[in-house]
Amino acid sequence: MEIHVIEKAEKISNYDLQGSQLVAIDVLRATSTMVTAFKNGALKIIPVMKTQQAFNIKKSNSQVILGGERGGVKISGFHLGNSPAEYTPENVYGKTIVMTTTNGTRLIQNSLAAESIYIGCLLNAKAVAEKLNKTRVFLACAGTRGYFSPEDFMAAGAIAWHLIQSKNVALNEKAKRAVEFFKGVKNRAEFLKLFPHGNLLIQRGFEKDISYCCQLDTIPVVPRYYCGSLYV
Amino acid sequence: MEIHVIEKAEKISNYDLQGSQLVAIDVLRATSTMVTAFKNGALKIIPVMKTQQAFNIKKSNSQVILGGERGGVKISGFHLGNSPAEYTPENVYGKTIVMTTTNGTRLIQNSLAAESIYIGCLLNAKAVAEKLNKTRVFLACAGTRGYFSPEDFMAAGAIAWHLIQSKNVALNEKAKRAVEFFKGVKNRAEFLKLFPHGNLLIQRGFEKDISYCCQLDTIPVVPRYYCGSLYV
Repeated sequence: MEIHVIEKAEKISNYDLQGSQLVAIDVLRATSTMVTAFKNGALKIIPVMKTQQAFNIKKSNSQVILGGERGGVKISGFHLGNSPAEYTPENVYGKTIVMTTTNGTRLIQNSLAAESIYIGCLLNAKAVAEKLNKTRVFLACAGTRGYFSPEDFMAAGAIAWHLIQSKNVALNEKAKRAVEFFKGVKNRAEFLKLFPHGNLLIQRGFEKDISYCCQLDTIPVVPRYYCGSLYV
Repeated sequence: MEIHVIEKAEKISNYDLQGSQLVAIDVLRATSTMVTAFKNGALKIIPVMKTQQAFNIKKSNSQVILGGERGGVKISGFHLGNSPAEYTPENVYGKTIVMTTTNGTRLIQNSLAAESIYIGCLLNAKAVAEKLNKTRVFLACAGTRGYFSPEDFMAAGAIAWHLIQSKNVALNEKAKRAVEFFKGVKNRAEFLKLFPHGNLLIQRGFEKDISYCCQLDTIPVVPRYYCGSLYV
């Protein structure tokens, strides 16, 4: 099994994804929130790029709830923002959620050539690793507005590290760096708070989300993208 | 000895520097370049904030050479940019250099309350650690345009790590994170190339500078700030 880490969404087009398994990673906060929503009983998540698409789906199906953010803040008229703390069983159990986020949704759109797309983060790193069994595996980091994000790279490292433990794998150069980084940084949340993205979340009042999203292997749920939607 | 790591220049004003030793760190590339210039025989470096100040000094003393960058590029009318590769013995031996850089000069200006200011980077991390002997030591990272820079944090970690080996020290929380980070990332240059600042240097043609500045303990020279200038 070859493990390729792609460090941001904009680089995905450099790779031939045909026949591969791809893990879409956006730790702060899209994929951590998706995994939490499914753990708490969500039935289905429909990821969309534009706010207007979400409102259009709501018009034709009034049962859906709308979730997402722009610049880290809940979109006006939406039920939920992008904080995993909002995706409680009370809010999401049995529900279909239409979700739009700045980086996470674009990441999935860029990955559609892969044979299968899974949703990964630190919370479900071990469970994701257990799903991977193809010859070519891509761990695709979202990044933040076109820039590299250390939190996504760390989660890619966590998944690759789990794979090393259990399977015969070959890591590309970036995957080696990601594993080193994951193993090297012990206090993930405190470290990430130093970076611009972590700082922005603190300013917006979401410091607790950073600690939450930095937990490792706490949720054994692996959402999968299929025909436009995510399911478990 | 208490070791405090300050993660960017803008945070220095939160600390009482009276009676302390402070190490100013701007790995890519101001402090790496200064250390290289002294290794190659420069007599004195005068750090200034504004390009015009550099031209004014040159007017009154035609022997000085001008060095520095804006946005990573050599300033028009200057002799040298901010690449350590330009500060060869041929260019700097026996010379006084007036130097202005975006982040490094501001860092020194913000640190003037300290009892002594040293210039640190990865290249001279061990030599810097050997100079430190006061009760309160600050390892002050420049950051990049107001943002946290992993390369500076890594060098702060390298200096703190050397101190742990030889002295009885207490690390603040950020210093602990910095040591973890320094120890955790093995291939520093490849790691830093992933981040925006490393990427920008590659785009500008300075990829080799990243590898150069990531070398550890290769230069035993510790410049010190005294009355407006740097000396060794």
